[in-house]
Amino acid sequence: MKDFKIIEGGVTAAKGFKAAVCEANIKYKDRTDMAFVYSETPCECAGTFTSNVVKAACVMWDKQLVESGKPMHGAIVNSGIANACTGKEGFDACEATAKAAEKCLGVPYDTIAVASTGVIGMQLPVDKLVAGVEKMSTTLDSSLEAGTKASKAIMTTDTVNKEIAVTFEVAGKEVVLGGMSKGSGMIHPNMCTMLGFLTSDIAIDKKLMQEALSEVITDTFNMISVDGDTSTNDTLLLMSNGLAGNDKITEKNEDYDTFKNALFEVCKFLARKMAADGEGASKLFTAQVVNAKSKEDARVLARSVISSSLSKAAIYGCDANFGRFLCAMGYSGVEFNQEDVELFFVSDAGKLQVFKFGVPLDFDEEFAKKILSSEEVIVYIDMHEGDKEATAWGCDLTYDYVKINADYRS
Amino acid sequence: MKDFKIIEGGVTAAKGFKAAVCEANIKYKDRTDMAFVYSETPCECAGTFTSNVVKAACVMWDKQLVESGKPMHGAIVNSGIANACTGKEGFDACEATAKAAEKCLGVPYDTIAVASTGVIGMQLPVDKLVAGVEKMSTTLDSSLEAGTKASKAIMTTDTVNKEIAVTFEVAGKEVVLGGMSKGSGMIHPNMCTMLGFLTSDIAIDKKLMQEALSEVITDTFNMISVDGDTSTNDTLLLMSNGLAGNDKITEKNEDYDTFKNALFEVCKFLARKMAADGEGASKLFTAQVVNAKSKEDARVLARSVISSSLSKAAIYGCDANFGRFLCAMGYSGVEFNQEDVELFFVSDAGKLQVFKFGVPLDFDEEFAKKILSSEEVIVYIDMHEGDKEATAWGCDLTYDYVKINADYRS
Repeated sequence: MKDFKIIEGGVTAAKGFKAAVCEANIKYKDRTDMAFVYSETPCECAGTFTSNVVKAACVMWDKQLVESGKPMHGAIVNSGIANACTGKEGFDACEATAKAAEKCLGVPYDTIAVASTGVIGMQLPVDKLVAGVEKMSTTLDSSLEAGTKASKAIMTTDTVNKEIAVTFEVAGKEVVLGGMSKGSGMIHPNMCTMLGFLTSDIAIDKKLMQEALSEVITDTFNMISVDGDTSTNDTLLLMSNGLAGNDKITEKNEDYDTFKNALFEVCKFLARKMAADGEGASKLFTAQVVNAKSKEDARVLARSVISSSLSKAAIYGCDANFGRFLCAMGYSGVEFNQEDVELFFVSDAGKLQVFKFGVPLDFDEEFAKKILSSEEVIVYIDMHEGDKEATAWGCDLTYDYVKINADYRS
Repeated sequence: MKDFKIIEGGVTAAKGFKAAVCEANIKYKDRTDMAFVYSETPCECAGTFTSNVVKAACVMWDKQLVESGKPMHGAIVNSGIANACTGKEGFDACEATAKAAEKCLGVPYDTIAVASTGVIGMQLPVDKLVAGVEKMSTTLDSSLEAGTKASKAIMTTDTVNKEIAVTFEVAGKEVVLGGMSKGSGMIHPNMCTMLGFLTSDIAIDKKLMQEALSEVITDTFNMISVDGDTSTNDTLLLMSNGLAGNDKITEKNEDYDTFKNALFEVCKFLARKMAADGEGASKLFTAQVVNAKSKEDARVLARSVISSSLSKAAIYGCDANFGRFLCAMGYSGVEFNQEDVELFFVSDAGKLQVFKFGVPLDFDEEFAKKILSSEEVIVYIDMHEGDKEATAWGCDLTYDYVKINADYRS
């Protein structure tokens, strides 16, 4: 397995990918709210989607395209209205959007994915969408800046845009993988709530690419939570157009491992970034569970800790109220003995043990407060039961979370 | 089945029950923080306890007593420290408390239940507990006021005390059932997080009483949620001393049904009261699911709606953002088609349909706001899939929830 290198850029970093944005005025005024990511060269496409039974129209549209196995050319995103709970009219809006791209660019409409995020239960203004596609089709641009603009246009309550690109070598060829994502509220593991778009110029078999993506999200996007609400719109698409010119990866060899490793780091970067930018969040709240009986136990325990409202409020208040973390582990559904557990707080300010084998320890409250005041706080939990580990990322629960969500539609 | 009548009082309403309180200064100053509920006549006792793997020492103590099948004499509660995650020292504190009662009252120490609520991960000051028991043993009082005082002494972040008493007839004899509970944070279905103490003078077989209690909590205490955190300390005890003089209920006859019905209403009253008094709550948020495929589906759907942070924030903001409710139903784990669903908002201000068979309806936003501004807001969901129903109770998510929990220990 070869290592990767982080480079500048996002969805337009890989060869052959262009992006464009526009102000379609779907919900927001005076800001871009549509983005188009496009490759003239047809792409293999892998995708993962929300597990919510109530799926948005665009999720059903994209699922159908990805499962058809046909090559894809791009994805069109709007960040005003989620197009969920919208019935047939909502599905028709997806088709109309894709057909506008067909008309402008001459690619079949069923090679264009469509994604939405925003308010649930409202219909999209199709005329604005179509006008937006027409505008963007004439301004598609391969610059890194165009990718950055796209990552900004898809934001809703996000406070920062999220993009990354990496490069790695596959059989002597330089390959690029880039991506962007958005997500701040309605974020919860289970194909974590988000929109994510990854682009690469790698040549790889579609089935292998899907397998790598599905595996990688288990320990990245599915390990973050902002508020426990799994959205209707979760979509992660990975498109690769093969322009890097590498010998196509068709089996799980070293090249596949190199690709999967880079994919993991890209997804982890974006996932952590989403957790840290959780609605109202003031810090990144990480739970690291080590020496668990099984990988799944470790995942469930770590997620339960970072998902607990009380734990999140304690992290916000820099309150070393470690009992809340143990409580959240206790109701996670995993069986364990508190007598085996050790619990530490860790940050760049230091490491402090607060619980050991069933018994609370006396500790320096001032030092605890210092650790808990850091930008990333890690609750480190040693289960002493096995050798499996997992990490989950969340954020603190603040006044601003309530403020943002008490009147989101207005 | 005979009906019941609500009467004044709480845990001391039934014949033979006394209560006392004291200021033990365990965590709070200048307020009562210990309560003792006592019956000189030995009681049959039923109990349900937290499903959290991390059980408080007092939960283990009480579970052991209830399961032993021996008659009980009372319960001693403190509201300062939870006595959870405290190892052997915590269990010893329970025994010391019960032994203090034995010394003062001459009843065996293993007939005294012990309950705690408050901070997790701190040791109880045993000397203060013992002093409290000594004091309370000399002031046990059968007045209704003594019961009310007990319901106040067990409060933590509760803003109102919670008590109720009912009377009903069993084979010509007047029977009384009373109760009190506390719970405001760390409240989540699964033997919902709480302390509850029910007392009755009914004569009933212990096994039948346990069965009735276990059934009744499924649709009462286990259907409420404040914050999704299942506590380490959940305890509900029902003690009956038989002083009503009714022929002992030993089978599931009409008398049993009358008792169970009254028990259901007492538990429902206390459960609703806890949900409405959720930490920081400004209103009661009820989800009523009708015409579901199965009872369990109905329960899961209703609980998912009232547990969703985004739904709770919308209720706080009086925002008719009904997509969040559908979203919460969608990730609940229950399979259904959104095309079968109808959704209404209901309160004393009126009833308004917002979603019908997969499609959002145009509705009067002003009227919606008026409905959502009521003290109890009901989201009424018709699944059109069967004939089963369930109701769950929660509260809105407010700034105050965050405030209360960001610095609970200090």
